[in-house]
Amino acid sequence: MAEWEKNIRRVEPYVPGEQPNRPGMIKLNTNENPYPPAPGVGLALKQLDTERLRLYPDPASTLLVEALAARNGLKSEQVFVGVGSDEVLALAFLTFFQSKKPVLFPDITYSFYEVWAQLYGIPYECQPLDEAFGIREEDYEKENGGIVLANPNAPTGLLVDPDFLRRILSKNQDVIVIVDEAYIDFGGESAVSLIPEFDNLLVVQTFSKSRSLAGMRIGAAFGQSGLIRYLNDVKYSFNSYTMDLTAQKLGAASLEDEGYFRETIQKIVNTRERVKAELKALGFRFGDSKANFIFATHPKLSAPELFEALKQENIYVRYFAKPRIRDYLRITIGTDGEMDVLVDFLKKYVKAADQ
Amino acid sequence: MAEWEKNIRRVEPYVPGEQPNRPGMIKLNTNENPYPPAPGVGLALKQLDTERLRLYPDPASTLLVEALAARNGLKSEQVFVGVGSDEVLALAFLTFFQSKKPVLFPDITYSFYEVWAQLYGIPYECQPLDEAFGIREEDYEKENGGIVLANPNAPTGLLVDPDFLRRILSKNQDVIVIVDEAYIDFGGESAVSLIPEFDNLLVVQTFSKSRSLAGMRIGAAFGQSGLIRYLNDVKYSFNSYTMDLTAQKLGAASLEDEGYFRETIQKIVNTRERVKAELKALGFRFGDSKANFIFATHPKLSAPELFEALKQENIYVRYFAKPRIRDYLRITIGTDGEMDVLVDFLKKYVKAADQ
Repeated sequence: MAEWEKNIRRVEPYVPGEQPNRPGMIKLNTNENPYPPAPGVGLALKQLDTERLRLYPDPASTLLVEALAARNGLKSEQVFVGVGSDEVLALAFLTFFQSKKPVLFPDITYSFYEVWAQLYGIPYECQPLDEAFGIREEDYEKENGGIVLANPNAPTGLLVDPDFLRRILSKNQDVIVIVDEAYIDFGGESAVSLIPEFDNLLVVQTFSKSRSLAGMRIGAAFGQSGLIRYLNDVKYSFNSYTMDLTAQKLGAASLEDEGYFRETIQKIVNTRERVKAELKALGFRFGDSKANFIFATHPKLSAPELFEALKQENIYVRYFAKPRIRDYLRITIGTDGEMDVLVDFLKKYVKAADQ
Repeated sequence: MAEWEKNIRRVEPYVPGEQPNRPGMIKLNTNENPYPPAPGVGLALKQLDTERLRLYPDPASTLLVEALAARNGLKSEQVFVGVGSDEVLALAFLTFFQSKKPVLFPDITYSFYEVWAQLYGIPYECQPLDEAFGIREEDYEKENGGIVLANPNAPTGLLVDPDFLRRILSKNQDVIVIVDEAYIDFGGESAVSLIPEFDNLLVVQTFSKSRSLAGMRIGAAFGQSGLIRYLNDVKYSFNSYTMDLTAQKLGAASLEDEGYFRETIQKIVNTRERVKAELKALGFRFGDSKANFIFATHPKLSAPELFEALKQENIYVRYFAKPRIRDYLRITIGTDGEMDVLVDFLKKYVKAADQ
């Protein structure tokens, strides 16, 4: 070991997530949208003035911020944008969780909450979901330095309603409550409507799922202007230019087509509900997902074995070898055609297992 | 003050840098390239498959990494890319400077080094440049937790040669030495050639200056594969997808046109040397900048007053109200036409001051 290696930050060695790219593969492993972004996005790309790329982008991403404000009935100073909701969330952790008391979030949720807490030296405490993977309200009544809830939660897909969040917010007015709404557009009611009531609420969303723009890395946060100002202060203090010009333009273009947005989501929701019925008929069990995935288990099947069997069929879903969820698979909702192939295979697989 | 405000990260309130956008303005304040990116960049943008944007981008940015490796005579595993050199540098600070000993960098240099050290709780010590703004070699022979040198340095524009860096590296083999080459293409010799000799050298570059792609936020780091692996481990551990698809494609396209790259740089260098002669004739003093800017002072003129006078003429340069450099202006090299307007005004201004 070289002497300088003693000063290296140690992290868990990373195993890159499977991002296979095979002909004919059915990719249901990272909750991507099966439909392309709105047609206006392609147009905005073609119309982009390449000469302008020699200049720094607008550090405030004004175009995108104003489009988001208009769409959500907010003022520009209530909107923050970043490189994917991952950057937005990490920055929110850094900005708002400087307490010595632990930040609270569920034991089964987006795995990066724990990572960012560790990165920034933020104390945290995971609160166990109940047996049905529900969030127990009383767990969020103890003293804490902040709260983070994904809604719908991932990978469970389960939703809480705004009244539940209102109670959590009311009982925790001394800390910031982050509601991560990566999947809210697939069937939930956004907590954005609670922003006027609570100065301690930060709502985070992404363009990666419902807006079919995972490839562009666009995330956003909404909150009262005081909160957003703090986020901007921290962001500007160490990296002014994060959103490139194409992300700003394409994100704004995506927001212009509400019709396409609703239509795409409706297709995914219809497919999800249809697939739920088919999986149920095959004996799978799962909560009532309001996201673009189903988190399913089967009393007679081994999840890792089924995961591998699907892979052999060129169908990729997600398996987490973690406590409490090692019997589950997370299946992204693809097109109807893709889900037909999946369900057909599962029918044969379950039948074979029954014999 | 709300109770939750006690847990907020406190930073210096940010005053956004002037990014005016007025008709006819001459923008010489942020070291942007006056020429557009290579023609192939526009072509790559037009050819981009918008449907592909629904998918996450390649987390390893393979296309761009391989293009950079080929251009620099390196292997892919010796190349790292990020959202501008700001993200790359911040991540390098986080990854490599976990020592309790202070990291060393000059007192006059890129201001974000200090910011990132503070952000990550890294001890640091600024080493004063000499009277001519030169780096004093002996300052980097004391015990330290790492070294960061911009080469050419900013905002001074002064260059050190590879032999100077070789001596610094030899004397500091127990720590990581970062050489920030944001401006190297405008007249310096890159330290990339030293990589085979030193396993503790990290060279950082950007597409924002010499490649006219400030709007796309593309930075890179080069080093032996062990060093790059550590950077990737930390990056993947908390944010896998940072480079969007357009940045990866456009960055790679830029690297394909070496002829355009050299031609553009040569034009800027020619303009710089011509303007140096003209400024000198007007009584300005400055070091021998090898960057795309000149850091100039005038014994008879007040820098902040000249800064304001230029602004009145719709000419924007950069002024730093900081110790040791408050009599200086940093003037980016624009097109010949832009520099003619600047020099014509300065002639009148100096003449008026002489009377």
